[in-house]
Amino acid sequence: MRVGVLTGGGDCPGLNAVIRAAVRKGVQEYGYTFTGFRDGWRGPLEGQVVPLDIPAVRGILPRGGTVLGSSRTNPLTAVDGVRRIKENLAKHEVDALIAIGGEDTLGVAARLSDEYGVPCVGVPKTIDNDLSATDYTFGFDTAVNIATEAIDRLHTTAESHMRVLVVEVMGRHAGWIALHSGLAGGANAILIPEQRFDVAEVCGWVESRFKVRYAPIVVVAEGAMPKDGQMVLKDGSLDSFGHVRLSGVGEWLAKEIERRTGKEARTTVLGHVQRGGTPSAFDRWLATRFGLHAIEAVRDQAYGAMVALRGTDVVRVPLAEATAKLKTVDPRLYAEAGVFFG
Amino acid sequence: MRVGVLTGGGDCPGLNAVIRAAVRKGVQEYGYTFTGFRDGWRGPLEGQVVPLDIPAVRGILPRGGTVLGSSRTNPLTAVDGVRRIKENLAKHEVDALIAIGGEDTLGVAARLSDEYGVPCVGVPKTIDNDLSATDYTFGFDTAVNIATEAIDRLHTTAESHMRVLVVEVMGRHAGWIALHSGLAGGANAILIPEQRFDVAEVCGWVESRFKVRYAPIVVVAEGAMPKDGQMVLKDGSLDSFGHVRLSGVGEWLAKEIERRTGKEARTTVLGHVQRGGTPSAFDRWLATRFGLHAIEAVRDQAYGAMVALRGTDVVRVPLAEATAKLKTVDPRLYAEAGVFFG
Amino acid sequence: MRVGVLTGGGDCPGLNAVIRAAVRKGVQEYGYTFTGFRDGWRGPLEGQVVPLDIPAVRGILPRGGTVLGSSRTNPLTAVDGVRRIKENLAKHEVDALIAIGGEDTLGVAARLSDEYGVPCVGVPKTIDNDLSATDYTFGFDTAVNIATEAIDRLHTTAESHMRVLVVEVMGRHAGWIALHSGLAGGANAILIPEQRFDVAEVCGWVESRFKVRYAPIVVVAEGAMPKDGQMVLKDGSLDSFGHVRLSGVGEWLAKEIERRTGKEARTTVLGHVQRGGTPSAFDRWLATRFGLHAIEAVRDQAYGAMVALRGTDVVRVPLAEATAKLKTVDPRLYAEAGVFFG
Amino acid sequence: MRVGVLTGGGDCPGLNAVIRAAVRKGVQEYGYTFTGFRDGWRGPLEGQVVPLDIPAVRGILPRGGTVLGSSRTNPLTAVDGVRRIKENLAKHEVDALIAIGGEDTLGVAARLSDEYGVPCVGVPKTIDNDLSATDYTFGFDTAVNIATEAIDRLHTTAESHMRVLVVEVMGRHAGWIALHSGLAGGANAILIPEQRFDVAEVCGWVESRFKVRYAPIVVVAEGAMPKDGQMVLKDGSLDSFGHVRLSGVGEWLAKEIERRTGKEARTTVLGHVQRGGTPSAFDRWLATRFGLHAIEAVRDQAYGAMVALRGTDVVRVPLAEATAKLKTVDPRLYAEAGVFFG
Repeated sequence: MRVGVLTGGGDCPGLNAVIRAAVRKGVQEYGYTFTGFRDGWRGPLEGQVVPLDIPAVRGILPRGGTVLGSSRTNPLTAVDGVRRIKENLAKHEVDALIAIGGEDTLGVAARLSDEYGVPCVGVPKTIDNDLSATDYTFGFDTAVNIATEAIDRLHTTAESHMRVLVVEVMGRHAGWIALHSGLAGGANAILIPEQRFDVAEVCGWVESRFKVRYAPIVVVAEGAMPKDGQMVLKDGSLDSFGHVRLSGVGEWLAKEIERRTGKEARTTVLGHVQRGGTPSAFDRWLATRFGLHAIEAVRDQAYGAMVALRGTDVVRVPLAEATAKLKTVDPRLYAEAGVFFG
Repeated sequence: MRVGVLTGGGDCPGLNAVIRAAVRKGVQEYGYTFTGFRDGWRGPLEGQVVPLDIPAVRGILPRGGTVLGSSRTNPLTAVDGVRRIKENLAKHEVDALIAIGGEDTLGVAARLSDEYGVPCVGVPKTIDNDLSATDYTFGFDTAVNIATEAIDRLHTTAESHMRVLVVEVMGRHAGWIALHSGLAGGANAILIPEQRFDVAEVCGWVESRFKVRYAPIVVVAEGAMPKDGQMVLKDGSLDSFGHVRLSGVGEWLAKEIERRTGKEARTTVLGHVQRGGTPSAFDRWLATRFGLHAIEAVRDQAYGAMVALRGTDVVRVPLAEATAKLKTVDPRLYAEAGVFFG
Repeated sequence: MRVGVLTGGGDCPGLNAVIRAAVRKGVQEYGYTFTGFRDGWRGPLEGQVVPLDIPAVRGILPRGGTVLGSSRTNPLTAVDGVRRIKENLAKHEVDALIAIGGEDTLGVAARLSDEYGVPCVGVPKTIDNDLSATDYTFGFDTAVNIATEAIDRLHTTAESHMRVLVVEVMGRHAGWIALHSGLAGGANAILIPEQRFDVAEVCGWVESRFKVRYAPIVVVAEGAMPKDGQMVLKDGSLDSFGHVRLSGVGEWLAKEIERRTGKEARTTVLGHVQRGGTPSAFDRWLATRFGLHAIEAVRDQAYGAMVALRGTDVVRVPLAEATAKLKTVDPRLYAEAGVFFG
Repeated sequence: MRVGVLTGGGDCPGLNAVIRAAVRKGVQEYGYTFTGFRDGWRGPLEGQVVPLDIPAVRGILPRGGTVLGSSRTNPLTAVDGVRRIKENLAKHEVDALIAIGGEDTLGVAARLSDEYGVPCVGVPKTIDNDLSATDYTFGFDTAVNIATEAIDRLHTTAESHMRVLVVEVMGRHAGWIALHSGLAGGANAILIPEQRFDVAEVCGWVESRFKVRYAPIVVVAEGAMPKDGQMVLKDGSLDSFGHVRLSGVGEWLAKEIERRTGKEARTTVLGHVQRGGTPSAFDRWLATRFGLHAIEAVRDQAYGAMVALRGTDVVRVPLAEATAKLKTVDPRLYAEAGVFFG
């Protein structure tokens, strides 16, 4: 049995831990051999492979990034994509494919598996934690820790200098990073894409905070948007996702708070720092277990399945279901956090 | 409604986060007042209280330890303990009590609530993660992160100097910290209290590691023990729990590995560093949600209940059940990790 | 003897450590009493004081920010500023003043001391490390560590996704943070305010890096500027310091690299995260020693002096000299780093 | 010109940074080639080499350990040691040797260079910071940061549980790590090898701390010793350096404090965690500069010289002088810290 492995989509701490665990268990327990495909779906599409064996995975557990490279290539929109993938799998004698990725990468795996008979097993990956069917994805805990440490640091400056500090974190469509890091960091307002915010209400929280001689931290997801009409934008200032270009919602919000409250406000945009580097212990544990269970799914020929976390168990769910719907923040969970605003 | 709060047992990152969340929600949403009892059950037993209001909980979210102090006092073995607790609650006009603690502290809460009608709600706390009825306890993730960072650091020394490095982590009765940090840190052997280890097998793993010009890391829980007859001890070298006194199992094992394999071995005992300091983002999130839900349990007069994590939900379980049995490492989970040994 | 203490200017990890050390030594060894002035020079100007004794400084060593608050108030431009300060010092029976701050705050201390006979001792503080007469200022090492950790995290994303990652760090007039964090983080280009950069040369380094299948990290100080004519700006896009408004030089550079090389580029702006939070061990050590030596300067009535680090010694230098000239990066030191570019 | 490089002695964060900087500058600026000698002086003694070029040093800057391996082999005590080294250098056409190490490794370099005409340049390395002629050695700042973080974590446990926490840090002959981390961590007692401590005085500090309802942290260097007669030892409980075997001075002191004061005391022994893992930003900067300047010394044929830090400058000093005498803690510096004891 020869198993192919690929990693697709944006960077995410824990990718290497999945690869290592799958290879270790596959080689040592089942005698499998492995082929690494380079740069996501581009690998099987163009037949780009890298050697993947036990020496190749030594020491990669704590490293961010992916030794296989990544891309956002979608083979289903490529000319003859499915045929070329099948040919390349045949050429490299690959019997099963483990695809590690987010919504897009796994959506391709679901269709290849269900519609075209390509034997795929999926491993969910996104720092945004917005994949259905799994309690958590690896990478998320690392991103939340990084954002929380940044918020911790900003608190002392807010207090000592009586300034509003706005922190823009990742999350274009789901506010999980903002919600978790905001709660963990003791933010005074948390703004998420799932619920449009009212700038006046945010300014109210800011001002109530100053009344007790403390200074506020506002955590805003990059995809959060104010209520209709509150943000006046010039032509071209929205990108194709409808989110604010260039300076971002964080910078816009800081200026708006300054304008409305007269308090100095500053913005920090953490950006890709949230995506890279060594994974947290939780993410290494989760990624490792996902890798071990992905190989078991291959052994059971459970193609079309994705491994998923439910409580403390790793289970299998249909790839098609898992990628059907984005997991956004439950309004009740968001409401729970409201007690800390202001 | 006046709510009493106490924290008992060993130190655990996240205690302050529970206290803060309960007070914030109780005061702001339900108009409750609070009384802090000092040093665990000693507080209500001896009537020692501290003020507990919103100013008192400001800024404590990221801090380790507990602003209420802690102790291992057991009021059920004190003369007239139950009566004195009831009198002190009455004297301070406390209508309900939130007890935050581990097996011992919550076991007292269970009996006071079920047998003596003292209105208690429990919040589970232990870095060891060995409480039944909850997927995780806060403090555990922090401890695992600290141990994992230590293992990361030791790897480079093991490699560069071809030494065996033994890391002794906490876990007297359950191997959760050893298992999670060992997996996350890429240890070459993980030894837990749940399963007696064979020193010869451990030495086999050590030697197979050196064969590929790499050096091994052995993670051992403080409560792990070798198979019968392998550890020859002098009188008085076992304490009342049957674990090795003074220099500990880590140091014993390092010497035994040196003696049997001829390789240099060194020990690190992390000790209380695993228990203190700022909580990880996950632990702050979990502790905060436990605090919020404990107040809701008080509002619902759900006495005798403990809040618990199930998947991503916080639920209520009977205190008596939760404290009836230690949660130890499932042998299948431990077996899963075996692929990385050697 | 009663000693006043104030902290002025931007936030900087270590301020509390200075305050604590001065108070501990002053009270315990010399029997001094202390008065804290609130919010920099605004405190003595407006007579705003806070109690400052041993209980007030307990536990503040590891905390960022300043328990005294800060501001950029310049009393020399205030109506009757000098007279009001003298009156408030007299009113609070303050015999000597320790001013902790950067160029501006210490510049005021120099003039008050030298021209108006106000007995001041200075302690240098700036994360930018651009104060003459001292080898290092506290806060700098913390800022460099934070920036370096961010660069570490970005490396894995750059590698795995073949992207250019631009990191904008603090440093409006001096490139110390960029130079040190860029060297420590293994950046492929470091751009500092002291030397205008050539965008074509930067793009050359970027492209040479991709040739060896690695992806580049570019570290740019916020005050760095391209050579004349390379940056076409619209009206109002430069602020009064001549640096790029709003989106900053980092974002501008990322776009320019994308345009010229066709490679995807992303920007991270660390912002105030570099200024806050717990100080590094070095900064706590330096700040503590500065605090101890400031009190000795007061005891010796060495007014008009600033404490400074020279090698491993803390010495005294004239405040007037120390603030006369910005310490910028030596061109030879910058040239030394050039071997790592590209 | 072909340059040999070796790393000797105990592990130390920053070794790889020196190697990388020397190779980058040597190859790119001067066109040198390099030979890596494996495992310290054993490499040139036994002719064990590894390839050393630009690809070999890519990505090693942030990694602890040494890609060249290390040992404590002393070639001057080996049969025909000097002749064999000369032969192996000749065989591999090595024109100059960069030796990176502590007292022992550099002592050999000094004699080989001065007495036997082997062209050596030295780079000082020790986490203990006890090498004369340089303000700091790389590795020290990392060790101090790790110890300080551990002390930070222990504070909250000490406070919440009213316990004495003893932290044993590295430093067999010099107390630099204890002094710096103790000061930075806010320890209530710091015990160093340079000055025998009085247990009664330590217990006095412990008790005075409890009087203000705070709990003490005691930092003790592994080489610290109580005054004569205070430590009653059994046969064989001292090793050949005269320091306490097995359980160490930290554990001994905790028991002694418990016995004398009746307060619970616990010990943490950080051990090799202080020696490994990624270097701090300062250590990467210093190690990188040492590597760059070592190559310049080779270019200038300044054999017998060691690079050293003086203030912010890297200078050259004679190897023989630098290794003649251990740099211990100045009694005045230690006295300065005394204000924080108790």
